[in-house]
Amino acid sequence: MKLYSYFRSSASYRVRIALNLKGLPYEYAAVHLLRGGGEQLQADYRRVCPDGIVPSLVDGGVVLQQSLAIIEYLEETHPNPPLLPSAPADRAYVRAIALQIACEIHPLNNLRVLKYLKHDLGVTDDAKNAWYKHWIDNGFSVLEATLAGDPRTGKFVFGDAPTMADLALVPQVFNAMRFNVDMQPYPTIQRLYDEAMRLDAFERAAPGRQPDAE
Amino acid sequence: MKLYSYFRSSASYRVRIALNLKGLPYEYAAVHLLRGGGEQLQADYRRVCPDGIVPSLVDGGVVLQQSLAIIEYLEETHPNPPLLPSAPADRAYVRAIALQIACEIHPLNNLRVLKYLKHDLGVTDDAKNAWYKHWIDNGFSVLEATLAGDPRTGKFVFGDAPTMADLALVPQVFNAMRFNVDMQPYPTIQRLYDEAMRLDAFERAAPGRQPDAE
Repeated sequence: MKLYSYFRSSASYRVRIALNLKGLPYEYAAVHLLRGGGEQLQADYRRVCPDGIVPSLVDGGVVLQQSLAIIEYLEETHPNPPLLPSAPADRAYVRAIALQIACEIHPLNNLRVLKYLKHDLGVTDDAKNAWYKHWIDNGFSVLEATLAGDPRTGKFVFGDAPTMADLALVPQVFNAMRFNVDMQPYPTIQRLYDEAMRLDAFERAAPGRQPDAE
Repeated sequence: MKLYSYFRSSASYRVRIALNLKGLPYEYAAVHLLRGGGEQLQADYRRVCPDGIVPSLVDGGVVLQQSLAIIEYLEETHPNPPLLPSAPADRAYVRAIALQIACEIHPLNNLRVLKYLKHDLGVTDDAKNAWYKHWIDNGFSVLEATLAGDPRTGKFVFGDAPTMADLALVPQVFNAMRFNVDMQPYPTIQRLYDEAMRLDAFERAAPGRQPDAE
């Protein structure tokens, strides 16, 4: 398998963790989302993925896009270790937490949106940072209340083994810390992040460990 | 089952279509996202769903959130008619299209984001509308190219029966048309929308047909 990835992309990070947890080796193809010199690489990449967003996973002749769809595919084709529980209600809970991060928090704070705020709407850096923190705090408040109150929370989001929810949570926390978000109000989220990062599969997937890290 | 819904919410609309296609009767509980008089309703609803966003589906003692997680749950608990194909690569394709809409387009244009742009960032109505159209055009251009070029496109996104991808596409097109987005550049998307709306399950799920429609 070949993963088109950018070291700082949260969505790429999710898939890297999944591949590591499932013990699947892969070739790493760096797609630089920022650097000017990366235009040719980006043009090449658009032949794989028309919208130029990462990640894409190529498995034989199959090109897969959208991190959560890729993770579901890996779950279906390589079921062990499972990244979803077995009961439908529990699977829905884990998926809902992953989607809360992937749909309610991450899309508002990714690179292209922050660029639009700055270059097209002309907002100040302060207003851009306030925007960032607003959507993190909005999403993390709800997530903290859910995770602190749900009996299913264990060492990981669901019990004592990682699931798709942890694959979404860890990159989002990493991203928030990079933007200096105060994590004090979110002790459960912080604890789950710390616990996950003890696992080699999570640690090896971290942005700083990727070949394209700066 | 009981669905907490708002007639105009695209995410609620997705779940209404799924319930109709699967032939599952449900009680409709309106949660008004705009009206001032709806505060008590909203307070009541927050006991079901802490972040107050719709939809939530209550199935016996199980409270389900996040539209795509709810649809996956319905698919697992009521498999017929299926809303996903059978082969993993095809399932990933359908999920990726649903997620492209749910993660790349919809989150940037929902009510709370448009409110933040206007009230917190103080952008003009013109700039807010330009923001809306930018993310629609950005997402629909990619989607149009994918759907026009993929041999799996039929009467519906995947072949000749509706899948999870159509459940995401139809509400997003409805929303775009409400905001007067020019659909001329997206003939495949428009055709798929028109085709789907011929089905009773889609038509009955439309915003104008809901009890809380204005």
